[in-house]
Amino acid sequence: MSLRYLVVAIAAQASAQLTGRGFPDCVNGPLSNNTVCDTSAEPLARATALIAAFTLQEKLNNTGSTSPGVPRLGLPAYTWWQEALHGVASSPGVNFSDSGDYSYATSFPQPILMGAAFDDELIRDVATVVSTEARAFNNDQRAGLDFWTPNINPFKDPRWGRGQETPGEDPFHLSSYVHALIDGLQGGYDPKYKRIMATCKHFTGYDMESWNGNLRYQWDAHINSQDLVEYYMPSFQSCARDSNVAAFMCSYNSLNGRPTCADPYLLQTVLREHWGWTEEQQWVTSDCDAVQNIYLPRGYNDTREAAVAQALIAGTDVDCGTYFQEFLPGAYAQGLFDISVLDQALVRQYSGLVRVGYFDGPSVPYRNLTFSDVNTQASQALALKAAEEGIALLKNDGALPMTIGANMTIGLVGDWANATTQMQGNYAGIAPYLHGPYYAANQTGAKVAIANVPGGQGDPTTDNWRKAWTVANQSDQLFYIGGIDNTVELEGNDRVTIAWTGAQLDMISRLAELKPGLVVVQMGAGSLDSSAILNNPNISALLWAGYPGQDGGTAIFNIITGKTAPAGRLPTTMYPANYIAQVPMTDMSLRPSTNNPGRTYQWYDKAVLPFGTGLHYTNFTASVATPTSRYGSANGSTTYSIESLTTGCNETYMDRCPFRTFAVDVTNTGSVCSDYVTLGYLTGSFGPTPYPLKRLVAYTRLHDVQAGSSQTANLVLDLASLSRVADNGDRVLYPGDYALMIDNAPLAMVNFTLTGEAYTLDHWPQPPEPVYQATDYFVGGFGSTYGDEIMVNVTSTML
Amino acid sequence: MSLRYLVVAIAAQASAQLTGRGFPDCVNGPLSNNTVCDTSAEPLARATALIAAFTLQEKLNNTGSTSPGVPRLGLPAYTWWQEALHGVASSPGVNFSDSGDYSYATSFPQPILMGAAFDDELIRDVATVVSTEARAFNNDQRAGLDFWTPNINPFKDPRWGRGQETPGEDPFHLSSYVHALIDGLQGGYDPKYKRIMATCKHFTGYDMESWNGNLRYQWDAHINSQDLVEYYMPSFQSCARDSNVAAFMCSYNSLNGRPTCADPYLLQTVLREHWGWTEEQQWVTSDCDAVQNIYLPRGYNDTREAAVAQALIAGTDVDCGTYFQEFLPGAYAQGLFDISVLDQALVRQYSGLVRVGYFDGPSVPYRNLTFSDVNTQASQALALKAAEEGIALLKNDGALPMTIGANMTIGLVGDWANATTQMQGNYAGIAPYLHGPYYAANQTGAKVAIANVPGGQGDPTTDNWRKAWTVANQSDQLFYIGGIDNTVELEGNDRVTIAWTGAQLDMISRLAELKPGLVVVQMGAGSLDSSAILNNPNISALLWAGYPGQDGGTAIFNIITGKTAPAGRLPTTMYPANYIAQVPMTDMSLRPSTNNPGRTYQWYDKAVLPFGTGLHYTNFTASVATPTSRYGSANGSTTYSIESLTTGCNETYMDRCPFRTFAVDVTNTGSVCSDYVTLGYLTGSFGPTPYPLKRLVAYTRLHDVQAGSSQTANLVLDLASLSRVADNGDRVLYPGDYALMIDNAPLAMVNFTLTGEAYTLDHWPQPPEPVYQATDYFVGGFGSTYGDEIMVNVTSTML
Repeated sequence: MSLRYLVVAIAAQASAQLTGRGFPDCVNGPLSNNTVCDTSAEPLARATALIAAFTLQEKLNNTGSTSPGVPRLGLPAYTWWQEALHGVASSPGVNFSDSGDYSYATSFPQPILMGAAFDDELIRDVATVVSTEARAFNNDQRAGLDFWTPNINPFKDPRWGRGQETPGEDPFHLSSYVHALIDGLQGGYDPKYKRIMATCKHFTGYDMESWNGNLRYQWDAHINSQDLVEYYMPSFQSCARDSNVAAFMCSYNSLNGRPTCADPYLLQTVLREHWGWTEEQQWVTSDCDAVQNIYLPRGYNDTREAAVAQALIAGTDVDCGTYFQEFLPGAYAQGLFDISVLDQALVRQYSGLVRVGYFDGPSVPYRNLTFSDVNTQASQALALKAAEEGIALLKNDGALPMTIGANMTIGLVGDWANATTQMQGNYAGIAPYLHGPYYAANQTGAKVAIANVPGGQGDPTTDNWRKAWTVANQSDQLFYIGGIDNTVELEGNDRVTIAWTGAQLDMISRLAELKPGLVVVQMGAGSLDSSAILNNPNISALLWAGYPGQDGGTAIFNIITGKTAPAGRLPTTMYPANYIAQVPMTDMSLRPSTNNPGRTYQWYDKAVLPFGTGLHYTNFTASVATPTSRYGSANGSTTYSIESLTTGCNETYMDRCPFRTFAVDVTNTGSVCSDYVTLGYLTGSFGPTPYPLKRLVAYTRLHDVQAGSSQTANLVLDLASLSRVADNGDRVLYPGDYALMIDNAPLAMVNFTLTGEAYTLDHWPQPPEPVYQATDYFVGGFGSTYGDEIMVNVTSTML
Repeated sequence: MSLRYLVVAIAAQASAQLTGRGFPDCVNGPLSNNTVCDTSAEPLARATALIAAFTLQEKLNNTGSTSPGVPRLGLPAYTWWQEALHGVASSPGVNFSDSGDYSYATSFPQPILMGAAFDDELIRDVATVVSTEARAFNNDQRAGLDFWTPNINPFKDPRWGRGQETPGEDPFHLSSYVHALIDGLQGGYDPKYKRIMATCKHFTGYDMESWNGNLRYQWDAHINSQDLVEYYMPSFQSCARDSNVAAFMCSYNSLNGRPTCADPYLLQTVLREHWGWTEEQQWVTSDCDAVQNIYLPRGYNDTREAAVAQALIAGTDVDCGTYFQEFLPGAYAQGLFDISVLDQALVRQYSGLVRVGYFDGPSVPYRNLTFSDVNTQASQALALKAAEEGIALLKNDGALPMTIGANMTIGLVGDWANATTQMQGNYAGIAPYLHGPYYAANQTGAKVAIANVPGGQGDPTTDNWRKAWTVANQSDQLFYIGGIDNTVELEGNDRVTIAWTGAQLDMISRLAELKPGLVVVQMGAGSLDSSAILNNPNISALLWAGYPGQDGGTAIFNIITGKTAPAGRLPTTMYPANYIAQVPMTDMSLRPSTNNPGRTYQWYDKAVLPFGTGLHYTNFTASVATPTSRYGSANGSTTYSIESLTTGCNETYMDRCPFRTFAVDVTNTGSVCSDYVTLGYLTGSFGPTPYPLKRLVAYTRLHDVQAGSSQTANLVLDLASLSRVADNGDRVLYPGDYALMIDNAPLAMVNFTLTGEAYTLDHWPQPPEPVYQATDYFVGGFGSTYGDEIMVNVTSTML
């Protein structure tokens, strides 16, 4: 997606207003006798009939994201580009009103913070609000019906500028999260009428913007099948195979030499064939101008016509950009593709619109939604709840929760102290309000002193720091609210350091000297090495609050004062500052090697704060009840034969077959009512070496566990949970010793054993040989033969 | 200097307005009887008397850039921070009016383009206008009298975000340029009253903002004495030793383990002692918060008090920031420095102010300058001339110069087509007008079509490209005006690619197909690999125009139409795109080695366009007249004995002794009157190996060489020109074979020989052993033991 989408949005809105929006007239319009208007026909037949009525030129015209429709047929223009990452968002197809109705939409926290809630029901609820509001905007002709969300690439490298858009680093977590999200966005997994069309992006291997001369538009990710299936693919498999998402987006990066938007292995063999994502109402869009990039800067094809033909044939159905519209005509004249391929792309697009009721008139569900359904009190409460559930308590010497009384002066220092739009992160809409920390502090009734310093990221100027010392001296209780924001982690720019800036550390340490008991609130998505804060005895507490959305300040102060107890967990590893010097961003491997200390909590054990970290205001214990299993070899036995596990399985995709449900009894032994996230990790000696340290296989969030009470968390494990991935990408059940651990500590553990022969649950389609583009070259950077190549734009020789 | 200086500026202005500006009252004020008000006394004695009247607290108060003065003594507040890189510029101490008088100042081209003029007289003239306008602003109490210009670090690495601020990559060129510049800024080399105080920055080894995790605030440059003396120091030696500049600025980077602002070797041994920069009216300021950075993020000292004491003792006299003001009191209480050191710093500051007549009342020269002296017609003409002189013609198939008639439609495409503030680059003021390409094109009388696309740097969106095809189709002659700008080369950010973006290359190639004869104008400072443009037969011409200032569009079209003939020369090497993959930015060595292809034209020979490139609208020949030399061994002999060259030399600094003046007869053999830049390079086999390919030792610009006529360029070589630098930094005259080459081709060459024993002209003070900071560590990045270390901010363990 383009950094400049706001500018583009304005242009596209103007264009859309010129060309008209709204729905085709299936009653009195020219299409009324076309099968597309026959609500009793199958979507595929309806779209096929529509496209059959197009002339060749009309077909070619409707291949880009700004689609003119067919005026002759009364088919309106349509913009294939709405955004809704955490609420209906500013984008080419979304038109907020300047004031009054439709001038705002609920602005939820960024996915990174919602991921930290580890609460799939919350995600489903949030997504349902988003799709409800999207439909209301659509009904007012202020948005289309496809939304280019979610970004579901795993947040592997702490430098990634777009990690904030994702729920975190763990592939199981992402898969589970996105399954709930699509349910909410689309209104079920196969409804007659989808609420909206969701778009899983960016397929695949995309998690770098700009690192050391490698730019996303031209970089080639080298990923072996094992890493691909184990780490990069699960969230997309969840989208396509398990959640029936309407659309996919191919990515800017190429994969093993092939631009993803021109790669039939990815778009046909894996996505459509292996995952059975074959309904014609499902379509693939390119990331914006990823089709152009096939030609330049990649130079993958010698002509623009060859590039667009290759993308279309590979399975890219919509070009975000104009390359299809401009060069498919020439490509067709040159005989580079058959008309049936173009028809197929158009049928996919328009059958997608059939499935959202585009041709079915006002009786379609959701057509009655209006602005009164936008940002309701319930939605406002949900936005606050989402932020509160995600906030993670990382250090607490007992100072939290604290009473803030009207007789106190509290001091807020830091760049986020008076945050407004900062709280939304990127891909945001217009919020109804933005209650930041300063606003929320004032609601406590205390006097509030504020100093919005040190200012800037990495660019210290002490000139205006004195106000911070004044605030510290005035305050009974001091808060530092800072970290990072979209000035350093953003689309197009990866971070260059994962340390707190020297300026912030300097200020924090002085504030802690001046006012011991300092509470630090760390904002932003990416990893920060907080060792100094954790080790400083004058700092009482550290909270992580990500990008908390429209009511973020309220959420932070509700946690601080104990109105809400914290139960969020870090959805990513917080690495030591020198981690980024140990592995290039371009190294896509997960496992440790000579030049890679290992990536994510599964392979790296020197975290400053590990994945899953999150303290409470109370204490929990957990125990795992005696199992009941239809596959156990004997009563409560801890040994299972692979044969019995697999022969009883009738699923098409065998990894979906159940293994066991573990009932975890969680007891709140402290004195504060609190949510509790039950994390289930699997570890053990089975399958290919090296073994991961552990991996998440199940989670569930218990709500409001009363002090002194217990609740049961049911952790459902299937055969996928037990499986490992072989070198060739096959998903295999291996004999060996397994342990399920509850929580990071762990609080409880169950051991069991699988016996018998290894069994392949999923045979991964083998990729073609990597082809490296003739015009690319890789430079073994700086004396290393390892993965830190710089891919240089060599297209300057191509004009 | 801080990226945020504009914000700071506002704060500082507000503060200055509160505390008062203007001059001390030496007639009726409390100081009237103090020697500081005695105009007959020596500056040092005057300042010493002033400081003697300060209390300890008053001394400590006046150590920062925002200096409160001493109200008790009627000494006004003073802001030590004005900018004037290419005209009086927005900065903390400069207060432009909102409208009317003092709402603008002449905005000259960026130094990179003025450097391309290779015209020291031009630079002197420009600097005189700048100091004139600065004085006018000062007389209206809108600016102080010290200006933190020039940036005279050599532009070594094409990625550097601040290369635009410098005249180029060559140390001789910079030394000569800055010598003329300081003359203009200060009003001579030792005037009774300086026009203003100039500040040579950043001392030294500073030419990286942020590369691969290395941030300027904490990075340590490793430079050996040979490279230091040969490449990094000459421009600073020119400032201090040869031009008597008023002030220096120590840099953000450290050098061989020592923060430059805390390094007595740099600030005392080299700067003050070796270069004789010992007058007490000369002072050193830190770069902004470079003193703070000694403590954090560097961790060079264990306490803030130790850090400020060390900086003060080392010779930093002004702290840009507040660390001196906040922590010198504690350091003094701890006995970490003697009061005499603080007195010395204050005496230096205030004797600097004595030298600009701060205490001498309205009879001081320049006190009568007013706004009528700002942006005069002559200054406007000079700004235009400076741009025209710098513009370099890089390709021309004969299409240029071209007639643009009123009956034509000309098309302008590219991000710079309608440039305004873009033309100023960074450290700019408010220009009286900004005549960009679109404005200038309209002045030709032709119809003008314009498309400001592709838009953005590295972020292609084809959505709005169609307007470019429309413009192309409408136009009789098409121009593409683009390249890079301050969105990708800027303070705090180095470039990540030196290729043209794929989007720009795509658009340029399509425009060239649509409208052969395309003229491309490359804007911005840094290197771009233009191979594809040079090789494309449909592209008639390529011009480089840098950041051309307030009348940049006029300059470009004056060149295009032949109103002015081009004679600028590239002041930097234009490297192939893959160059940056071959050498890390952190490698400060100049000579080729296993992991370094060599830096600058002196050591690298695979340039796409070499340093000094610049075509003309005519042809020139050159011949070198028979020499006359008082040191030649016989009449016109080409052999010189080193003994005779050195024994006849009475200069304190022997490298200043003359060698020979070469009279170069330059003949314009073509049909167009044109300036001609006479470049003199020395090459040969003498001194330590490896030998540089060649190096610039003299240049002069001839003006208006009429067609068919000749002019003589006198190239003056001194012993420094002949010398080479030994491993230990000594500057030595070596026996061997020398050749002086005229121009890049070359057009003429003179050979001569030096005989006898090598003779050391300058004994370089030997540095202390490198000390690497205990809390630093370097990570041999990515399997390499070479120089691509990432210095990680490890100060997170320090709180």
